[in-house]
Amino acid sequence: MTSRDNRWLKEFRVALRGGVPTADGAVGVEGVRLVEEALASGCRVEAVLFSESGERHRERLAPLIARPEMGFPVLRTTDRLFEGIADTEHPQGVAALVVPRKLEMADVLATPEGACAPLIVVLAGVQDPGNVGTILRTAAAFGATGAVTAATGQSGTASPFAPKAMRASAGAALHLPIVCGMALGILLTQLKLNGIRTLASCVHEDVVGAMAPWEVDWCQAIALLVGNEGAGLPEEVVHAADARIHIPMATRVESLNAAAAAAVVLYEGYRQRRSARV
Amino acid sequence: MTSRDNRWLKEFRVALRGGVPTADGAVGVEGVRLVEEALASGCRVEAVLFSESGERHRERLAPLIARPEMGFPVLRTTDRLFEGIADTEHPQGVAALVVPRKLEMADVLATPEGACAPLIVVLAGVQDPGNVGTILRTAAAFGATGAVTAATGQSGTASPFAPKAMRASAGAALHLPIVCGMALGILLTQLKLNGIRTLASCVHEDVVGAMAPWEVDWCQAIALLVGNEGAGLPEEVVHAADARIHIPMATRVESLNAAAAAAVVLYEGYRQRRSARV
Repeated sequence: MTSRDNRWLKEFRVALRGGVPTADGAVGVEGVRLVEEALASGCRVEAVLFSESGERHRERLAPLIARPEMGFPVLRTTDRLFEGIADTEHPQGVAALVVPRKLEMADVLATPEGACAPLIVVLAGVQDPGNVGTILRTAAAFGATGAVTAATGQSGTASPFAPKAMRASAGAALHLPIVCGMALGILLTQLKLNGIRTLASCVHEDVVGAMAPWEVDWCQAIALLVGNEGAGLPEEVVHAADARIHIPMATRVESLNAAAAAAVVLYEGYRQRRSARV
Repeated sequence: MTSRDNRWLKEFRVALRGGVPTADGAVGVEGVRLVEEALASGCRVEAVLFSESGERHRERLAPLIARPEMGFPVLRTTDRLFEGIADTEHPQGVAALVVPRKLEMADVLATPEGACAPLIVVLAGVQDPGNVGTILRTAAAFGATGAVTAATGQSGTASPFAPKAMRASAGAALHLPIVCGMALGILLTQLKLNGIRTLASCVHEDVVGAMAPWEVDWCQAIALLVGNEGAGLPEEVVHAADARIHIPMATRVESLNAAAAAAVVLYEGYRQRRSARV
């Protein structure tokens, strides 16, 4: 193994097991499906790594790796070294370093072709990387046009590009336009200036005048604000939003989990947008 | 500590850390919210255990513990011993042994007061206890009237009463009528004989004639069949069902996760049943 190979293995280790971006801003993805997503995403891929037993996935990935514009190194290592680098318990033996697109708010605010208006998911204080990833996966599935992560006074939002979030998102974080780490106040102002209606998701029933998901007109330009798993959105954000939304429920079960609640609300948006289009 | 106390601690350890029912059929719940649910559920509670630091929750639970019909022992132990018994990393210091109701299919098939018709969730091969619990929590939230777990040829369904599933269900497993471990073939026959329409949840888009959730008339008596996280329902079950249901999606994201998909479908059922009632 050359010293260049060794340098790459260190980078993979930082990004996967370490869970933080490399000095170049590359994040690590692991497993054949996520590597495939990364290669197909249009994001810059810095390197692909196979372990000995991971070589069995090479054929599936070959058409994506072989494209002329893909000028990155394809490295090999032993199963033992790969296990020391990977973040998962039973790694599939294939990983990539990929640089997420650097996007501006303008990219998230745009209305993509085929959509009637922007539908932006704002994660404000969602702490669990699994929830962040699952919500982004659901958002992409139901036609959200972009996402923003923001910290609140009480809590930050987990990075969509950390390995656990990336796995839960099934790679959606590489496709959906995302801006990370906005200041929440500035974001709310920008949404207002751009005529985007803000909807605060409320976990508890006691918010006066909260709408059911089916009472919202989802064909408008909308930003759905999703708060912390336990505490929800900060009260001042709930009040500052253009409207509040709450999922009515049949029983005394306190609340849905954060990802299930987001799925329900985003489904309702998709149902309406779809029937408006027909 | 008496030898009787020691015997109880062993039982708690089996049910919590061991994750299996005691010889009496009691399951372990941990944390103040779940213990509260257990005490309020009407299920038989065998014992409650506080650690030293868990004593701070005693006041909240006292009204439920003090009821005359509650003739079970309330035990105490040290924080160190409690940690050795608990299944969680940072235990809250309160746990209970509770015996889930033994229900028959007739209980699950009944139409409870306030519901227009039975809405039964059938978990067939859902392996992850977290998914089982989350789906039951969502089912209770959206007015499902009962649930059944069944094994398929390929995969069993995790027990709703294992500690991880119980936590994810937020205690819903103690309220919602549940029958565990039915043979799937017998179950499907029973549902048919009772005039309950079976809907097979399909993960992949290629099932011909699958309905969108909004195309289903949810005010009928319905059993929603949910399959394994990876493989879905066995093909013969998909074909044998009265109808197939698939959640339409906007993008190439392969599928929602199992719990998010169930939430969406059950929400649609609730939305329709609710508006029919008004």
